[in-house]
Amino acid sequence: MSATPTYEMHPVAWVRGGRAEPRDDAWDAEQAWVVLDETMDAETLRGLDAFSHVEIVFVFDRVDPERVETVARRPRNNPAWPRVGVFAQRGKSRPNRIGVTRCGLEEIDLTNRRIRVRGLDAVDGTPVLDIKPHMPAFDARGEVRQPDWAAELMAGYWT
Amino acid sequence: MSATPTYEMHPVAWVRGGRAEPRDDAWDAEQAWVVLDETMDAETLRGLDAFSHVEIVFVFDRVDPERVETVARRPRNNPAWPRVGVFAQRGKSRPNRIGVTRCGLEEIDLTNRRIRVRGLDAVDGTPVLDIKPHMPAFDARGEVRQPDWAAELMAGYWT
Repeated sequence: MSATPTYEMHPVAWVRGGRAEPRDDAWDAEQAWVVLDETMDAETLRGLDAFSHVEIVFVFDRVDPERVETVARRPRNNPAWPRVGVFAQRGKSRPNRIGVTRCGLEEIDLTNRRIRVRGLDAVDGTPVLDIKPHMPAFDARGEVRQPDWAAELMAGYWT
Repeated sequence: MSATPTYEMHPVAWVRGGRAEPRDDAWDAEQAWVVLDETMDAETLRGLDAFSHVEIVFVFDRVDPERVETVARRPRNNPAWPRVGVFAQRGKSRPNRIGVTRCGLEEIDLTNRRIRVRGLDAVDGTPVLDIKPHMPAFDARGEVRQPDWAAELMAGYWT
């Protein structure tokens, strides 16, 4: 058997502005720029203005990789909520430290190779690995179900 | 200035079953297993069964990194559609080669450290970088808009 492969990822862009420090709630009040890395051409953003939302894939780079917990714990350490594994929560302390968030696309500024977004739950300086247009067809298909703790946790997350 | 950082990603799981080769449409007919890598404990999946859908972050590892195009091209090379940049499309030939898809969670098999999913548009053997529970609050907030070509492209993608 060959060794497990690894994948080297390069930032394609950077979060500039918005919150300087992570805080859990009211993220939809925040606007920030996502500025292309110098290795990326402005043409990569061509046509994105026809979409109202983008999906940002980023790295929780403030999390120490040595401190990522994988086994079951209570979300936000809230004693009222059950212990769940890292893949049953969306917290930042996770293997590979990847975040994925859909946020509003407010403006495209091709001259300065950047887009302005609303409701991106990533702090100033965060490295971005991908920008995807939000297509409604990629929403969950069929009836959606989630546990009560998840609905409670998300109650004030955006607004 | 310091050099641009890179991030080394390790597969947390692997797609097993489903399609052997990529094909563009009717992905919701497919079921596959997402099997944890041997480095991951079954406890990482604890509590995921309370969710109806998961979000899978994976690598399009069949794409040659040397052949990733970033500037504007027509989606699926369809002459009827406009030229758009790589960050205005969701195609697989993109920087960092990351795919993100919400799919139905059909079964959790903790004994064999795996989950069965429906509608994952990734082929057999694909490395998985993250598994996140789908929370409806992470859907796009506010009115959603997309160009006509995107709706046309997605018309037969799932069914």
